[in-house]
Amino acid sequence: MIYFDNSATTAIDPQVLRTFTEVSTKIMGNPSSLHSLGTTATRLLEASRRQIAELLGIKAEEVYFTSGGTEGDNWVLKGVAFEKRPYGNHIIVSSVEHPAVKNTAEWLKTQGFEVDYAPVDAQGAVDLEALKKLIRAETILISVMAVNNEVGTIQPIAALSELLKDKPTISFHVDAVQAIGKIPVADWLTSRVDFATLSAHKFHGPRGVGIVIAKSGKRLVPLLHGGGQEHNRRSTTENLAGIAATAKALRLALTDEAFKREKVAAMKEVIQNELKKHDKVVLFSQKEGFAPNILTFGIRGVRGEVVVHAFEQHDIFISTTSACSSKKNAAAGTLVAMNVANKLATSAVRLSLDSTNNMAEVEQFLTVFRQIYQELEKVSG
Amino acid sequence: MIYFDNSATTAIDPQVLRTFTEVSTKIMGNPSSLHSLGTTATRLLEASRRQIAELLGIKAEEVYFTSGGTEGDNWVLKGVAFEKRPYGNHIIVSSVEHPAVKNTAEWLKTQGFEVDYAPVDAQGAVDLEALKKLIRAETILISVMAVNNEVGTIQPIAALSELLKDKPTISFHVDAVQAIGKIPVADWLTSRVDFATLSAHKFHGPRGVGIVIAKSGKRLVPLLHGGGQEHNRRSTTENLAGIAATAKALRLALTDEAFKREKVAAMKEVIQNELKKHDKVVLFSQKEGFAPNILTFGIRGVRGEVVVHAFEQHDIFISTTSACSSKKNAAAGTLVAMNVANKLATSAVRLSLDSTNNMAEVEQFLTVFRQIYQELEKVSG
Repeated sequence: MIYFDNSATTAIDPQVLRTFTEVSTKIMGNPSSLHSLGTTATRLLEASRRQIAELLGIKAEEVYFTSGGTEGDNWVLKGVAFEKRPYGNHIIVSSVEHPAVKNTAEWLKTQGFEVDYAPVDAQGAVDLEALKKLIRAETILISVMAVNNEVGTIQPIAALSELLKDKPTISFHVDAVQAIGKIPVADWLTSRVDFATLSAHKFHGPRGVGIVIAKSGKRLVPLLHGGGQEHNRRSTTENLAGIAATAKALRLALTDEAFKREKVAAMKEVIQNELKKHDKVVLFSQKEGFAPNILTFGIRGVRGEVVVHAFEQHDIFISTTSACSSKKNAAAGTLVAMNVANKLATSAVRLSLDSTNNMAEVEQFLTVFRQIYQELEKVSG
Repeated sequence: MIYFDNSATTAIDPQVLRTFTEVSTKIMGNPSSLHSLGTTATRLLEASRRQIAELLGIKAEEVYFTSGGTEGDNWVLKGVAFEKRPYGNHIIVSSVEHPAVKNTAEWLKTQGFEVDYAPVDAQGAVDLEALKKLIRAETILISVMAVNNEVGTIQPIAALSELLKDKPTISFHVDAVQAIGKIPVADWLTSRVDFATLSAHKFHGPRGVGIVIAKSGKRLVPLLHGGGQEHNRRSTTENLAGIAATAKALRLALTDEAFKREKVAAMKEVIQNELKKHDKVVLFSQKEGFAPNILTFGIRGVRGEVVVHAFEQHDIFISTTSACSSKKNAAAGTLVAMNVANKLATSAVRLSLDSTNNMAEVEQFLTVFRQIYQELEKVSG
């Protein structure tokens, strides 16, 4: 099996799973309990938080645990919106955000908030001048992802941070779900970023665990009210085994990350160079300005799902852009925002590589690709 | 070690953990993916859902997976409130609900909803006549727990169902987090109940997984917007290993449940009978009308945490009522609602037994209790 769908989900790392099972077996207390079983659990919880904070270069009290990227995005958007409603009701998100951001923004519209979508250029990168023009006195929140999940565009977070430097009343949120290990942390976690969202299963951690970074002093209404965990900001009994496993996964993901990025980039380049030789191939992801792991392309006149299933016959797993939209049979939102014609957009398939992949798999992929291309070329019209 | 704090959290069952690790290792796909790895994952997801539905006697499409009891309670309360706002803004919850319900209701007050707290009697059971009087034309939701977490009172869900029979426009939610295995499912999941909340780690399942039951046709706004999972009602990549493990845990919890309940009740009775012999002991939990596993009592003039720590010296783990409130040094909300004087309420400690406990542990507990009681009697004044 060749798994080139790592942006959908990654396999849990065996060491990470071991941490999960060890914590599950050995530490049974509820961190909220008064007795020593609770204290032991709390100690591991806080050690995990500190480790994650150190890896990200932030303070421990800026790390909050969630159930995943979707909860994180919902929490930040809704939390900031409800927190700051007295000061304004205008939100800007990029037009290429994940549905967890976009659909949350759409719901906030039903609650009296106004949402503008910042346009992107032909590469899928946010148009900074256009975004700047959308900012109003009522703007309370801007949300832009670090790495686009459908084509891999790296968004200009540093430039956005610069743009927002003199606008301290606007909260700045970065959905960094696709960023860990793909671009350096410093590229998306600037000092101007107030909130950021991570998801463990995108970097070989467990499903059902995420992180929200909320910088010191940055307030937001809880999404989960209750027993007062996480400094009263995110209530629920802490998923300690999942949290410790996530700390482990993050440490592994960031170990030798530059080396791993180069390895992945080299694989992407080999594939890219081969794909380019084929007339009917359109590349939606480039080298410069894109994450090293994502390569989205299409074969003109062939629907993406046909290509996905053709590869699957050879035990190679790729995706029609994002997993979330793949069953809906719709063109990728990012490509539409990039002004790619609808017919061409529906041809898109996404390869998402990982450092656990290797060049032998790439060669195998390309052998199969040439075969599939030949077959599909005939029918593509 | 003797662990009598099973209402705070339970140890994960080794078989449940095995299911978790097996699914984590063998099934890596994202259920949303178009390819066969996604299909395999979806198949297991839906099999887990069907199994849970069968165990609970409901339809598979009425089972939704969440990150735990707190998310479930937040989702139902906020989801119904926002869904039904055009029809009314009045919510009734009992005065002995878990903070996940109470604090959510409090937040809804900041959003224009009106909340009434239904009083309870001296046993902590909701006063049906008083609740009935609170119902108005604007009432959209009533939320009452199945089993109280602090003293174990079984709430009159059947009688409430009868009361609400001719009021179909009011959504009826039951927080059943403390009910699984403690009272029969039929006692809290009546045909009138529209929504119910469960938490896996309360019945030897994994942390970070819960279930919301939403009966067919009962609508509520999502708490997590995004990629459209769970029939577009609860978005996020499904925690498949956790979900399969939860199905396993529920099956185990409901296997021989009557037998296990009797075993637990017998242990509770032995402890109760012994405690009664001590003048300064006040029992807050009774036999009739209370869950068989929870026994809350106090030693007059001795603060609960002193008792907890005294037992801890003997490797026996109990709690000052709920885990959530135990670190806050406040009297249990349930006891306050039961009109227990504040000083007496702060003496409360909770034993929460489990079928994995045994009579030898009970004897050991009582030996230690007699010793502690003698020591504390002198200082209690």
